[in-house]
Amino acid sequence: MKIAVNQFNPLIGDIEGNSAKIIEGYNKALEDGADLCIFPELAVCGYPPLDLVEKKEFRERVKTASEKIAAVTREAGLIFGTITEDLEENAGTGIYNSAMLCFNGSVQFVQNKTLIPNYDVFDEMRYFESAKDVDVFEFRNEKLGISICEDIWNDADYWKHRRYIFDPIEKLKDKGASVLINISASPYAYGKRKERLEMLSTLTRIDNFPLAYVCCAGAQTDLIFDGASMCFNRKGELCMLGKSFATDYFIFDTAKEYVPVTEVEGSYEKEVLNALIFGLRDYAAKTGFKKALIGLSGGIDSALVAYIAVEAFGPENVRVVMMPSKYSSEGSVKDSELLIQNLGIKSDLVSIQPVVDKALEMLNPLFEGAGEDITEENLQSRTRGLYLMALSNKFNYLLCTTGNKSEMGVGYATLYGDMCGALGVIADVYKTKVYDIVKYINRDSEIIPRNIIDKAPSAELRENQTDQDTLPPYEVLDEILKMYLEEYKEYNEIVEAIGEPSVVKRVLKMVDANEFKRKQAAPALRVSTKAFGYGRRFPIVNGWRKNF
Amino acid sequence: MKIAVNQFNPLIGDIEGNSAKIIEGYNKALEDGADLCIFPELAVCGYPPLDLVEKKEFRERVKTASEKIAAVTREAGLIFGTITEDLEENAGTGIYNSAMLCFNGSVQFVQNKTLIPNYDVFDEMRYFESAKDVDVFEFRNEKLGISICEDIWNDADYWKHRRYIFDPIEKLKDKGASVLINISASPYAYGKRKERLEMLSTLTRIDNFPLAYVCCAGAQTDLIFDGASMCFNRKGELCMLGKSFATDYFIFDTAKEYVPVTEVEGSYEKEVLNALIFGLRDYAAKTGFKKALIGLSGGIDSALVAYIAVEAFGPENVRVVMMPSKYSSEGSVKDSELLIQNLGIKSDLVSIQPVVDKALEMLNPLFEGAGEDITEENLQSRTRGLYLMALSNKFNYLLCTTGNKSEMGVGYATLYGDMCGALGVIADVYKTKVYDIVKYINRDSEIIPRNIIDKAPSAELRENQTDQDTLPPYEVLDEILKMYLEEYKEYNEIVEAIGEPSVVKRVLKMVDANEFKRKQAAPALRVSTKAFGYGRRFPIVNGWRKNF
Repeated sequence: MKIAVNQFNPLIGDIEGNSAKIIEGYNKALEDGADLCIFPELAVCGYPPLDLVEKKEFRERVKTASEKIAAVTREAGLIFGTITEDLEENAGTGIYNSAMLCFNGSVQFVQNKTLIPNYDVFDEMRYFESAKDVDVFEFRNEKLGISICEDIWNDADYWKHRRYIFDPIEKLKDKGASVLINISASPYAYGKRKERLEMLSTLTRIDNFPLAYVCCAGAQTDLIFDGASMCFNRKGELCMLGKSFATDYFIFDTAKEYVPVTEVEGSYEKEVLNALIFGLRDYAAKTGFKKALIGLSGGIDSALVAYIAVEAFGPENVRVVMMPSKYSSEGSVKDSELLIQNLGIKSDLVSIQPVVDKALEMLNPLFEGAGEDITEENLQSRTRGLYLMALSNKFNYLLCTTGNKSEMGVGYATLYGDMCGALGVIADVYKTKVYDIVKYINRDSEIIPRNIIDKAPSAELRENQTDQDTLPPYEVLDEILKMYLEEYKEYNEIVEAIGEPSVVKRVLKMVDANEFKRKQAAPALRVSTKAFGYGRRFPIVNGWRKNF
Repeated sequence: MKIAVNQFNPLIGDIEGNSAKIIEGYNKALEDGADLCIFPELAVCGYPPLDLVEKKEFRERVKTASEKIAAVTREAGLIFGTITEDLEENAGTGIYNSAMLCFNGSVQFVQNKTLIPNYDVFDEMRYFESAKDVDVFEFRNEKLGISICEDIWNDADYWKHRRYIFDPIEKLKDKGASVLINISASPYAYGKRKERLEMLSTLTRIDNFPLAYVCCAGAQTDLIFDGASMCFNRKGELCMLGKSFATDYFIFDTAKEYVPVTEVEGSYEKEVLNALIFGLRDYAAKTGFKKALIGLSGGIDSALVAYIAVEAFGPENVRVVMMPSKYSSEGSVKDSELLIQNLGIKSDLVSIQPVVDKALEMLNPLFEGAGEDITEENLQSRTRGLYLMALSNKFNYLLCTTGNKSEMGVGYATLYGDMCGALGVIADVYKTKVYDIVKYINRDSEIIPRNIIDKAPSAELRENQTDQDTLPPYEVLDEILKMYLEEYKEYNEIVEAIGEPSVVKRVLKMVDANEFKRKQAAPALRVSTKAFGYGRRFPIVNGWRKNF
């Protein structure tokens, strides 16, 4: 069976646009003599559609579009993700996340999703009911076993602890499925591709199936879908791998012999850098931004974000602003100027000091003689935010925030200051990983100046300040954060692993106390299995550390 | 049976503090000769605990605390909400939202929650499995039918369309329950109390049960729990009603005759005003803020928020700042001064103009000759934000944002400007309702000056500006928003109901286009069934209106 795999990039909510792309891909598959043409989960409406699903008109338009797609099909099969609805159902939503199989001008078979993920960034139980049954469909001498994303992630041969009791793939096997199709929308996290390979390889080998797995490729605000669709033979060998961070189209022939693909994922630095460039570019493309703006501090974070923006937008569409104050070191501007030269981008230099001084002059009578404190530091950061937002408003720049995951974790960022912006480009990347990525960028030539890498990180908001006045060394901080944020380990376990009880205590307190800041942060491109934002939900009002 | 109803106020995560309150309440019930003492859903850890549930140590501490509570019980029964866990379970989370019945020093019975809500602000399927069975428990000659919140909201006699197929109350009835207990944590929305009365009255009357329903009273960031616990006799009459927006303790005797309570809810103005005062006060109490700060514009929104803050904090703890610019009308300051006098609060007057002028002077070379536009308006608003945040940082004021639901809906607010603040006090109240509440406040004497109410609403960010330069009249806007935001109606349905196709089109576009602003907004006290924030989830990258 020749299966045309369409790793396309839908836009959430753009039902007509997505439908047109599906029809176009199907027609190409027809020309190419494919038996079957497959598109990802919820291809018609994009994934995740969130509360749009709760709109009756949305569901109706998805239904109409799906029928129109079915109507143009000819002899080759077309499978795509859509929403179906059981209007007779008198309990529950009656709404399903479905795979629709069409040919000869009509819908021939519908398989609803059985396993409905409802963890991390997934809220599908909010919208969708679980399939009442799973079945195979006979087509061109094969019994197609069709499943949707999560359905295939509950294999008893692979998982020690399973999320669900029922395994729809087991059922498909029992019903005699001969070819497995899985249509997915699986958000990117570094390491997941390797896990997917292992899991799907185990499943196809043990259950003796060929499998075509298709995933979309595109960014939906914070979520990046990396494509990398995978097709396996019945020996569990990866025969074909879709492009990473790009749309793709290819034909997998279940009867053909392939040289197995073994490499699915490069180094963290390479993959995550590509993910962030792709995520930023697609966010801009889908929201209509053509140009990016970055506040360049002379530090490594904003340097990395500027590099990413140049890759995403082209140097001619990136503008950076240096905004020194009386606390800025001379080196900061000089280092930035070298970076600007290396990247070939437009830059401005404008001091914040006159505005900071004027604001303090105006506010001084209200300060009632109180001494200097964090207020004056935040004021500098907020004046920079004021400048950047003014430029963003004036010229419709996409303002990129430059905070990293370590800073966002402990709240080492100023709300309405350096946190201003539409998208957190590196807010899911730890500071130590920021260094690694920059070294990777510099692997052939020094694009990001050595001085920027070598100098002690500093917010430069007071005399001779460095990050380490306030924070533990980033190597230690990141280790604590990883255990706390990603593994949900607690104080005792973390201290057992790395020691430093007082440091651990301080970090955990900082993380919890800064939930309010992160709640008002820009969405952050997600490249780990647990990013800030939608997939991490902690209360602001929280007494968990009351007696800590 | 004498049931002591404990309408208490837990703090999320403060397991020890909540446990101490449960033991204290139980001891009082013992003294008062109660047979049974009941506490709300998840009383030990507070509701909603969100991702804290995913921490192993959190669940262990909840378990330990629950056992400690059980250990101090004597002959009277104690029912409280807690988390239990089935560690043997090899699929799913194995975690349950449970009601624990203890007496004579140990846990005697556990009923897990069957119906797990996963809509609007509820994400419980993220954490909890559904009970495998429901059962009654015989205690002091009664068969107790114990349920948890949502369990009682699926009565086939009351609902035409039900959310769930199974009805645990029906099962309890079949098993011979003679007294019904429901422990809840039900977030406030205006109108819900009346609906709860009708629903529970129908259920108790038709099924012939007495019922004690207990709900917590407190605010958890955006969610307000209003108390108003309800006890019914088997005729469906409301015998006892707990206080609204306050903790309470009372004893309901199922054998006693009561004069039925018929009024459970006052006017919108009265109830919502009380909800907001309570919500703001409890947010501050739980986060440690003792003083509030508000930017006073001379308009009705900030006047209302100042009034609410005075009620919540006392006039001596409220500071307001008037920050005129060259576009501020003379009336604005004069009207504000009268309000300040009426409220008896501390105030400051500080012009933003020198800072705005200085910032524009600095930015002008970067503007490259571009003409004035929204940039200059936003800059004024952001300078006010800069001032307010500086004061908030300097003196640890809780900065209250003053935007209403109409403005937040259409994005008539400046990100990092007037949107600065920790809590959106009236961000779930439409502008037309703001007027109604202010009129209610003025019912006996003019607290909020007439001028503030009568003048045309204006952001005063340019010469002679009024809101209606940009927005339709608020009566029309609010009608559109209500249908769009709360009923998820779409263009055709709204136009059919109110006409004005071009206005409707414009408003719908504005709402969708401003999702990015609301994502970075402060949490908003929720007083309607559909507020912005946690319970409303729409994508930022959204093509739904691409061809609109």
